[in-house]
Amino acid sequence: MQKFFIEEAYFNDLTLPEDLIYQAYKVLRYKTDDKFIIGVKEENYLVKIKNISLKELKYEIVEKLDINNELDLYVTIIQGYPKGDKFEDIIKHGTELGASYFIPLIMDRTQFKMDDKRQENKLIRFNKIVKEASEQSFRNIVPKVLSFSYLNNIDLSCYDAIFVCYEEEAKNGKLQGLKNVLKELKSKSNIAFIIGPEGGISDKEINYLKNIKNTYFISLGKRILRTETAPLYCLSAVSYERELK
Amino acid sequence: MQKFFIEEAYFNDLTLPEDLIYQAYKVLRYKTDDKFIIGVKEENYLVKIKNISLKELKYEIVEKLDINNELDLYVTIIQGYPKGDKFEDIIKHGTELGASYFIPLIMDRTQFKMDDKRQENKLIRFNKIVKEASEQSFRNIVPKVLSFSYLNNIDLSCYDAIFVCYEEEAKNGKLQGLKNVLKELKSKSNIAFIIGPEGGISDKEINYLKNIKNTYFISLGKRILRTETAPLYCLSAVSYERELK
Repeated sequence: MQKFFIEEAYFNDLTLPEDLIYQAYKVLRYKTDDKFIIGVKEENYLVKIKNISLKELKYEIVEKLDINNELDLYVTIIQGYPKGDKFEDIIKHGTELGASYFIPLIMDRTQFKMDDKRQENKLIRFNKIVKEASEQSFRNIVPKVLSFSYLNNIDLSCYDAIFVCYEEEAKNGKLQGLKNVLKELKSKSNIAFIIGPEGGISDKEINYLKNIKNTYFISLGKRILRTETAPLYCLSAVSYERELK
Repeated sequence: MQKFFIEEAYFNDLTLPEDLIYQAYKVLRYKTDDKFIIGVKEENYLVKIKNISLKELKYEIVEKLDINNELDLYVTIIQGYPKGDKFEDIIKHGTELGASYFIPLIMDRTQFKMDDKRQENKLIRFNKIVKEASEQSFRNIVPKVLSFSYLNNIDLSCYDAIFVCYEEEAKNGKLQGLKNVLKELKSKSNIAFIIGPEGGISDKEINYLKNIKNTYFISLGKRILRTETAPLYCLSAVSYERELK
């Protein structure tokens, strides 16, 4: 069943914003009595269409749904900004896998040439991708893509654990850290994964991170993962550890 | 460091096939004394270039490397063939994550229109993608992409465990199975994950699979994953459970 995230004002009027009315009428071809799910302020409602046209849509509430599809940890993916459109794939699939926040990180080895205007447009686009992925994957909330940042501009003190994915660990065969910490974390903890861009994390950045509290250098198995695969491993690991009994 | 998988004959002559000589000379711009890794028959050798030109490359063996980057289970991804180029992403990232085999599966809800010739060309392309991904991720072996198949043509009796990713389980909140079985499997076991295409697995297919021995219907966390995200979750879970201590 289709899910739409909407602002509270539309829900109070038992309608949808204009673009979603268009989508419901023209793309999904909804008719009177068709049902869909509304996500509003982290709550979910099953609703039924009372009347629909290209200009107007009214629904009634069938029931409030008691579903929670969120991870029990708040996970931030701090992603060294990769080449091409890879960041879009990361946030799309990362949303399906339960991330709460994404931070596109300009690191020493990021090849980055975007002026402020372009960054602003990108962020609008990123947040649209994340909203659609949230609807498709039945998230309770829509994750946020935060502004492009530099490592030393991020307040890392707000995280209960910061996992730095460092491929040298994998090459050296040190396979520990992530599992032990994930098992022990209290529900509702804030955690972050820091993932380097294509060239990896620089020595300077590693040294900076070594001085941050609650930082763990982890490996993601024995093989060398691409920068766009690593965050999906991290999020799958969180789900596997915390959701599968 | 670059890794190349080559046939034994080239290794016996301490050279590379023509296309890799071109790549080494023109793309990577290797010179005498540069080193790279050769993967041959599941073994790895560090080698050093003795002479190189556009037409010829000779190397000497520096040492045999004792590295094993393989999962301790043989994992087959039996993937309901998805739309567009998604299968290529699945095998690329699935190779990084340690899969041994991929089977493109024509399921009830696969939209599939490929004649035999086109299938053959696709398989050549798929196996090339997998080889490159193996080199990049430092695999010991190159996984195989097997022929396009139908569910009832696959011999499922060769697997010690078959996990069917069935999203109804996720919707119903039944979150068990995968973890218990993954923990208990003996090293070198053969396992398979069956993943539906965009429309999911049909009731007919589910009923067929219910009668297969060693089949487990599993969920991959609370959210609904896209068909191309599910296999990456499965492989990450195997690595997380079996490789991270």
